[in-house]
Amino acid sequence: MREITTNDVANSVKNGDCIAFGGFTPAGTPKLSASAIARKAEEEHAAGRPFKIHVLTGASTGDSVDGVLARADAIISRVPYQSDSNIRNLINGGNVHYCDIHISHYAQQVKQKMFGEIDLAIVEAADISDSGEILFTTALGVAPTFCRHAKKIVVELNEYHPKKIRGLHDIYETELAPHTRPIPLVTIRDRIGTETIKIDPAKIIGIVRTNIPDQVKAFSSSDRDTDRIGEHIAKFLSNEIRSGRILPPFPIQSGVGNVANSVLKAISAETSITPYTMYSEVLQDSILEAIKSGSLLFASGAALTMTPECLGEIYDNYDFFKTHLILRTQEISNHPEIILRLGLVSINTALEVDICGNVNSTHVLGSNVVNGVGGSADFARNSQISIFACKSTAKDGKISAIVPFCSHVDHSEHSVKILVTEYGIADLRGKDPRRRAQEIINNCVHPDYKDLLGKYLSMASGGHIPFSPANAFKMYEAFASEGDMRKTNWNM
Amino acid sequence: MREITTNDVANSVKNGDCIAFGGFTPAGTPKLSASAIARKAEEEHAAGRPFKIHVLTGASTGDSVDGVLARADAIISRVPYQSDSNIRNLINGGNVHYCDIHISHYAQQVKQKMFGEIDLAIVEAADISDSGEILFTTALGVAPTFCRHAKKIVVELNEYHPKKIRGLHDIYETELAPHTRPIPLVTIRDRIGTETIKIDPAKIIGIVRTNIPDQVKAFSSSDRDTDRIGEHIAKFLSNEIRSGRILPPFPIQSGVGNVANSVLKAISAETSITPYTMYSEVLQDSILEAIKSGSLLFASGAALTMTPECLGEIYDNYDFFKTHLILRTQEISNHPEIILRLGLVSINTALEVDICGNVNSTHVLGSNVVNGVGGSADFARNSQISIFACKSTAKDGKISAIVPFCSHVDHSEHSVKILVTEYGIADLRGKDPRRRAQEIINNCVHPDYKDLLGKYLSMASGGHIPFSPANAFKMYEAFASEGDMRKTNWNM
Repeated sequence: MREITTNDVANSVKNGDCIAFGGFTPAGTPKLSASAIARKAEEEHAAGRPFKIHVLTGASTGDSVDGVLARADAIISRVPYQSDSNIRNLINGGNVHYCDIHISHYAQQVKQKMFGEIDLAIVEAADISDSGEILFTTALGVAPTFCRHAKKIVVELNEYHPKKIRGLHDIYETELAPHTRPIPLVTIRDRIGTETIKIDPAKIIGIVRTNIPDQVKAFSSSDRDTDRIGEHIAKFLSNEIRSGRILPPFPIQSGVGNVANSVLKAISAETSITPYTMYSEVLQDSILEAIKSGSLLFASGAALTMTPECLGEIYDNYDFFKTHLILRTQEISNHPEIILRLGLVSINTALEVDICGNVNSTHVLGSNVVNGVGGSADFARNSQISIFACKSTAKDGKISAIVPFCSHVDHSEHSVKILVTEYGIADLRGKDPRRRAQEIINNCVHPDYKDLLGKYLSMASGGHIPFSPANAFKMYEAFASEGDMRKTNWNM
Repeated sequence: MREITTNDVANSVKNGDCIAFGGFTPAGTPKLSASAIARKAEEEHAAGRPFKIHVLTGASTGDSVDGVLARADAIISRVPYQSDSNIRNLINGGNVHYCDIHISHYAQQVKQKMFGEIDLAIVEAADISDSGEILFTTALGVAPTFCRHAKKIVVELNEYHPKKIRGLHDIYETELAPHTRPIPLVTIRDRIGTETIKIDPAKIIGIVRTNIPDQVKAFSSSDRDTDRIGEHIAKFLSNEIRSGRILPPFPIQSGVGNVANSVLKAISAETSITPYTMYSEVLQDSILEAIKSGSLLFASGAALTMTPECLGEIYDNYDFFKTHLILRTQEISNHPEIILRLGLVSINTALEVDICGNVNSTHVLGSNVVNGVGGSADFARNSQISIFACKSTAKDGKISAIVPFCSHVDHSEHSVKILVTEYGIADLRGKDPRRRAQEIINNCVHPDYKDLLGKYLSMASGGHIPFSPANAFKMYEAFASEGDMRKTNWNM
């Protein structure tokens, strides 16, 4: 395979091209090529020439893709998910077209060329053969699909990752209808695909050698409130098992961040749930201790998003860890067919919830996007129990996470079953909207907001759903004018 | 099997019981037993004693269940869907607890006893053997699950339906996780279950003989606007086939009502789409002509919801029609695994849409429920293309169906791909929210509202999603105060 420089990569990219980057989160994201493309963009801009590209990824990336390209103002459009402050500012300023897509829908849309032709795919590999056989690194994401559909491919061969990880991956792509068939995955351990993919070497422009770890930062640590949330969830699941409503063993799906870490900690300590398994998107540092302690038997994901310290421990003890881990393509990690079949219990973080159980996962005050819907709706919609968790307030209590009416709905009242804050748990199953509102106000709302939301509920009388259009967004208006939602005056 | 009277049925029901009625829509809904229970409720109420029941059904019913029980004020709670004005008024008045559930989630929740124990299941049969083998009538719905889980069963043996329909049904129930397995349905014609079910005769209280057709009314006929909607959709699908984005043959799912009838008419006339197939929930009169003409090859549904005239034609020519029809349990007709595998094109009606593509299917002005979410979100979320259609205005133009912000969100912007009104089609795929808003305003909004919504869009500047909390519901306020949304004054 021919080795090339990142400048060679940049030179192969034209203004308006569609470039697909492998990886899923910073894991498996190419480390060097995008910087060269960003430098080219800056040079072209300095010379007064337009230069921007369409960017496809698996999910979020590291600074090495979204950061460098956004700072160079080199992006026209972006799908399907991001979590980088540089590109977020461009999106919310109206300078990048961002299409926020269900992760499970995405591979199909790529195959249907919904985003046009892929001019170049840039993927990271731990190994590549002369015949075009690629061993991926810490994520599969949608990289195999990109490779199959791109006109040209660049492989960043990252020697940081050992070749012994061959076997970590299970690569399976679905066909488009009418050629789709049942996906033969029945337990979370099942292997249904291949360890590597083979692509036409003629499509490979060349190899860029790197030796750079994934740009994964440790998440903010858990605190007393997140620990309480974790304890409420562990207790709830324990009760569900006892009642016979859910049959163990059930795989857990968990979002990312400090709430998720607290949840895993609490579940790992609950003997009626352990040992458990995970079928999720992103596998994080917190699974390491859980696997070592024996509470987590097996974890399946689309990415190993770990700090270098934790990933190093896995690589150092690979013979042990390889029997507990598998990486899948994101269309399989998030596939409704599999989520339903395995009977997942999904636990995701809400940005905002309303008293009827609608959840906003994406947009602050209905307008500025934070990250995106990602896989949350794949899991929430198809899991056997969808749990959403959040702290009851933000900004030192000036914002209530629970409002009369969500300013953006990513998960409708029909798909949200359990809500948890540090104050407690609201079981919304089988209840009508008014009973759900009472349950949420009684069990989850911060004491500072109980009266306020109770008043909204009694004011919004009549109808199946308690709703007062003149007051639905009053709490936002109070925050905008008074800096504190507690100063809301209802329009009686 | 012992024959009993409807009074015997009523006498077996106690205040507070949970009664599950078979059927799906008026098709297959029991015709006589609920009337006797309603009479008992009225007698008990007259005597000053409380008497109400919890009512589970497959979906909507006929007047013979929801109507008679609602008029007798005999209902405590109701799941998962209704479309009856009597019960709707009780729900919106806060007198019946109504839990509106995704049809595809429902069977699992019944099996998990999420609504408690079923004291009595009342189902309609075309035949029953002494050993407890039941041949259902025009719907399967969730009746087999009710029969398996109920403590006692009453069978209404309806001699209106001939025994020769044995073979029309394909009864398949999924297990609860972790016992779930791939559902072996690969083409819409596949038979994966049984023609009848067998239940323990000891659970059957007795048989009530009837000879009564399903209470199906003809839908309001199509008009110029619905015909235009149908033509836009047929043309769009024809273009998709030509572009290679969707591969024929693909099954169509279609909601109910006059828009759906116009859509089927237009599709049946479009030679690049025909012959087509249907994989849907409710099969209506309109499929009759399509099957006879050869444009519709095969239709799979959970119910044959037909007027007596059309059903009569099917029964009179059953040897022909039986090769074109199958009825499935509602968990299979609406199963995400199957909808995804078959690559459905789904076409559902919206009550209200916002400029970013969120859809309200259920609640007028965010409060009063019309019917329920039903299966619309099962199909929209998992189909390969989800189309929503509505007329651009209601009430002689005084209400715009397209508003700045939906007062209730059943289908989020992430799941709505195509919007159609009589004015045209908006293709929302791959677009960011602002581009979607422009596309919707340009192509779908009624001319009377283009400037008004254009102004909202330019006013709600900044951010990823155009949103102005102070104006989001102004059009409702104008309708409330002025009787006409065209009189909206934006809060600049």
